[in-house]
Amino acid sequence: MANSSSGESIIRRLVRLVGSFDDVHLTMSVATLARRSGLPVTTTYRLVDELLAEGLMERDASGEVRIGTRLWELVSRSSPMLGLREAALPFMEDVQSVVQHSTTLGILDSDEVLYIERIGSRDSLVDITKVAGRLPVHGTSSGLVLLAYSEPAYQDLFLSRPLARFTDDTLTHPTDLRRHLAHIRQRGFASMPGIIVPESSGIAVPVFGRANTVVAALSVVVPRNEENVAARVPVLMTSARGISRALGWRGELKGAVRQSNGSI
Amino acid sequence: MANSSSGESIIRRLVRLVGSFDDVHLTMSVATLARRSGLPVTTTYRLVDELLAEGLMERDASGEVRIGTRLWELVSRSSPMLGLREAALPFMEDVQSVVQHSTTLGILDSDEVLYIERIGSRDSLVDITKVAGRLPVHGTSSGLVLLAYSEPAYQDLFLSRPLARFTDDTLTHPTDLRRHLAHIRQRGFASMPGIIVPESSGIAVPVFGRANTVVAALSVVVPRNEENVAARVPVLMTSARGISRALGWRGELKGAVRQSNGSI
Repeated sequence: MANSSSGESIIRRLVRLVGSFDDVHLTMSVATLARRSGLPVTTTYRLVDELLAEGLMERDASGEVRIGTRLWELVSRSSPMLGLREAALPFMEDVQSVVQHSTTLGILDSDEVLYIERIGSRDSLVDITKVAGRLPVHGTSSGLVLLAYSEPAYQDLFLSRPLARFTDDTLTHPTDLRRHLAHIRQRGFASMPGIIVPESSGIAVPVFGRANTVVAALSVVVPRNEENVAARVPVLMTSARGISRALGWRGELKGAVRQSNGSI
Repeated sequence: MANSSSGESIIRRLVRLVGSFDDVHLTMSVATLARRSGLPVTTTYRLVDELLAEGLMERDASGEVRIGTRLWELVSRSSPMLGLREAALPFMEDVQSVVQHSTTLGILDSDEVLYIERIGSRDSLVDITKVAGRLPVHGTSSGLVLLAYSEPAYQDLFLSRPLARFTDDTLTHPTDLRRHLAHIRQRGFASMPGIIVPESSGIAVPVFGRANTVVAALSVVVPRNEENVAARVPVLMTSARGISRALGWRGELKGAVRQSNGSI
């Protein structure tokens, strides 16, 4: 019933429509939307009309369409990100006010880092993260922290795939990466200069949830050679503990992280 | 094609499903989802299966379903709120660090204030705002600022309806409200003690967009009788100007707001 003549469900078609928008394509004509989504023009017009009627899309003054306020509201008020984001934001502000560069919160989703919050300078030259943006796991300090604390079976699967080299400093060989993941678990943080763009460094620490598993990575992105790891890691760790406690974590640190707390 | 036997479109059914979740109902069984959405159980199961397959819903460890990370990501990265929220957040942090109570950013949507950002204490006893939450226009300082700067025809329509009284201080009579809206335009801010809950006060100022129209209200919520309006309004106005400039506003203030700048 919900399928089109091409056999594709309405839901999949809606995903193609909504997925045609991003932060550089916030509004577009319906004709452009049809082209970007790959849907037939008549189908696109019909679905857009329905979405406009429900407030899920809106038309701007020039006649172009965009994602509607109602859709943002429906999803935002019940998002699984809500609790994590609300717990983290005050602590991220504290980090930001001390470190002065951008501060991000990322989760592991579909083999990538998905940034669910970011505060700091919007025009940072060294920071390519953005809210609801994705970056590769092995190209970011957050990704390597999330991988370091994930299940061994997941690590094996991840490391069995070919990995892209972004800069001279990107680790792509499974043996190098495994050694580095062990190092991250031992020290309780990742500090990765220039692994995705040569001029920036990321420093990241794990955030724990109620079940004592790592649910996110808290990170700062700073200019390369201005890492100041000795001062910044304790700030990040303190804030990550605050976020973890706000999420219901009881303070039972994993062995590796406990060691690192003593060593800094 | 997209209609069910009841004549309701798939899109409307999806809105009913997604709209059944909120910040106190983040996860639920499919049976509960059917009950809350008012959809037939078999329909609910079929749609949920499709949504799970697309990652738009997720199943948690207990088998309950929730809004999926993929849906949050799809909507967040292209939301019309993105630019406003990103422009505002650094300035909101500045307000927050000076005022120390919660700071909110609200827009006028479907005759209500929709809060698109909020920072500050999550457990504030005096602040009932939340992100993606709604409050009545005449019950909030943000709402009254947004109404004060909206088109006269919209004000007439809004004031023609019966308005609920939330506390002894809620203004509900059109004549009182019109006088108050003129006062807000004259001074460039609203300070409203106890109009929705007796123990809190809101102070709000307008945020202007590129076209020199008011696009949002920046507000702080503080305990009643601790308003300190003389100190806080200049902080809010300065930050609102910063947000406005970041949105492309050229600094051509409306007469009423210009006057108020001179008088504080």
